Amino acid sequence: MTEFELITHYFQAHPNTRSDVILSIGDDAALLLPPANQLLAVTTDTLIEGVHFLPGTAPQTLGHKSLAVSLSDLAAMGAEPAWIVLSLSLPTIDESWLSAFCEGFFSLSNSYHLQLVGGNTTRGQLSISTHLTGFIPAGKALRRDGAKPGDFIYVTGCLGDAALALACLQGKAAIPAADLTIIKPRLETPTPRVAAGLALRDIATAAIDISDGLAADLGHILQQSNVGAALNLRDLPLSKTLQNLSQDRGFHLALSGGDDYELCFTVSPEKVSLLEGAFLGLDITYQKIGVIKQERGLKLEGVEGFTLKNEGHDHFLKNKTCL
Amino acid sequence: MTEFELITHYFQAHPNTRSDVILSIGDDAALLLPPANQLLAVTTDTLIEGVHFLPGTAPQTLGHKSLAVSLSDLAAMGAEPAWIVLSLSLPTIDESWLSAFCEGFFSLSNSYHLQLVGGNTTRGQLSISTHLTGFIPAGKALRRDGAKPGDFIYVTGCLGDAALALACLQGKAAIPAADLTIIKPRLETPTPRVAAGLALRDIATAAIDISDGLAADLGHILQQSNVGAALNLRDLPLSKTLQNLSQDRGFHLALSGGDDYELCFTVSPEKVSLLEGAFLGLDITYQKIGVIKQERGLKLEGVEGFTLKNEGHDHFLKNKTCL
Repeated sequence: MTEFELITHYFQAHPNTRSDVILSIGDDAALLLPPANQLLAVTTDTLIEGVHFLPGTAPQTLGHKSLAVSLSDLAAMGAEPAWIVLSLSLPTIDESWLSAFCEGFFSLSNSYHLQLVGGNTTRGQLSISTHLTGFIPAGKALRRDGAKPGDFIYVTGCLGDAALALACLQGKAAIPAADLTIIKPRLETPTPRVAAGLALRDIATAAIDISDGLAADLGHILQQSNVGAALNLRDLPLSKTLQNLSQDRGFHLALSGGDDYELCFTVSPEKVSLLEGAFLGLDITYQKIGVIKQERGLKLEGVEGFTLKNEGHDHFLKNKTCL
Repeated sequence: MTEFELITHYFQAHPNTRSDVILSIGDDAALLLPPANQLLAVTTDTLIEGVHFLPGTAPQTLGHKSLAVSLSDLAAMGAEPAWIVLSLSLPTIDESWLSAFCEGFFSLSNSYHLQLVGGNTTRGQLSISTHLTGFIPAGKALRRDGAKPGDFIYVTGCLGDAALALACLQGKAAIPAADLTIIKPRLETPTPRVAAGLALRDIATAAIDISDGLAADLGHILQQSNVGAALNLRDLPLSKTLQNLSQDRGFHLALSGGDDYELCFTVSPEKVSLLEGAFLGLDITYQKIGVIKQERGLKLEGVEGFTLKNEGHDHFLKNKTCL
């Protein structure tokens, strides 16, 4: 058995848990039974050491995060996660690293009833690609092109903590150790908002995950919906840690920090009343932050003299784009 | 527009050609309409510079090959190719490189009516991951576990040319330049045997692609079918170039050379007569090379004193495994 066959057995050890997986790991291709009357939502993400995560990042958090970033994309479509294909490139075979990676990876996958159905491992720069497939009934997907003037704009969770944690780990910012402990999981083990995406299927007119920063990602909704927006900066949900920074810094992190695996979504005024029931019991907060306008462009209101410096966004995730 | 957004537009430029692609590149996930009454066959492969291909390999051939290796896996299942997701990691943005890569990639994808539906690009070591989905009616898939004692063993095409070409490019072997010109496309722009896989749906009892070498890949069929096999070395299909080598070298390349994107398949004696009609008009040769046995193990017959040295397999593809 070669080293890489060993890895294969590592990933094969996990049991089949889904009846729609007809043939899993171990043939030229996996065989999967698609659901009747639903569309497939497919997304892929690659995390590369030194590009998307700091060298030396704990393998357990990498296992979690590599899956979480793709789950966040399915969440943003309102899709129900189902199948994973994993491509792993490793510079060396370190069984304790692999064991910890799998712990983070399968802990998250099991909690969403996801099954690993295939993939490959190879020797190279540390790199993790996840390809996820989810299900969604036709016509229910939360696309980027459905926002209409008058719709209200919301975000889940709070903004900017991940970017602040990264800045601290890179030595570009300093906050009390206790605060860093609180916000670091927002960078390393984010919770994808799958439940929120499912709950928003019949409510939101558009949605996107804001992993590239609220301003940039809301910009995609505005562009694809041919609309503009006004945000009230006073309404941006900021953690206590971010509130302790200078106002300018806090707003910049919240608007363009990146690595926030939250959803930004729009809701027509007639459906706003449905939100409370949709989020009931989900343990996910949401906050109205603005309104969609007919006039193109993104207006930032509520604070005199604030200007967003797009150039200020130095998050290394920015050199990645999704096709 | 960032450099990487430029790439995205590059890949987005290609038109939608499939009616089952509801939403393509440009949202959090693609939306795809699975076919009724068919299974999905999914496979993924990663090619990394210096691991799976030589540094400096022409981008057009890389575009072709990165897709061909995954198409070969779908062929080995008997699946009809449909959708591609591409993850591309590039050390720098070189538009002439990208242009040539796309030429090779889309030329092959168009010839199979495949559509690129999503993916991502990032900065890093040159690495290409293709994720392919194909369709196959339930019960028709060519799996590895269906071979029965008495079945005859076949391969398509001829064997070992790709490994010989690689050895020449690495300076480990020398053949006349005219011969290298003939066999180099077998390494760089292999033709996946998709048509053969489709034709074998109702005929073969098992199939596999032999990209890791005939002996190793036939070994997977034997292991998963709980059987053994006897091959007649005299029946191995060798090109004129391989026939000009020493007999020992030729057999070793044919049995364990790797990078042969051919199919090895098994057929019960009752169905052998169907093969000629199935391959009619396909422009793909096939050759009977042996028989499945009850006794485990792989016997090599027909040549006195030949022993396969597994250790002799130094193809760099060997440090990759599929989950």
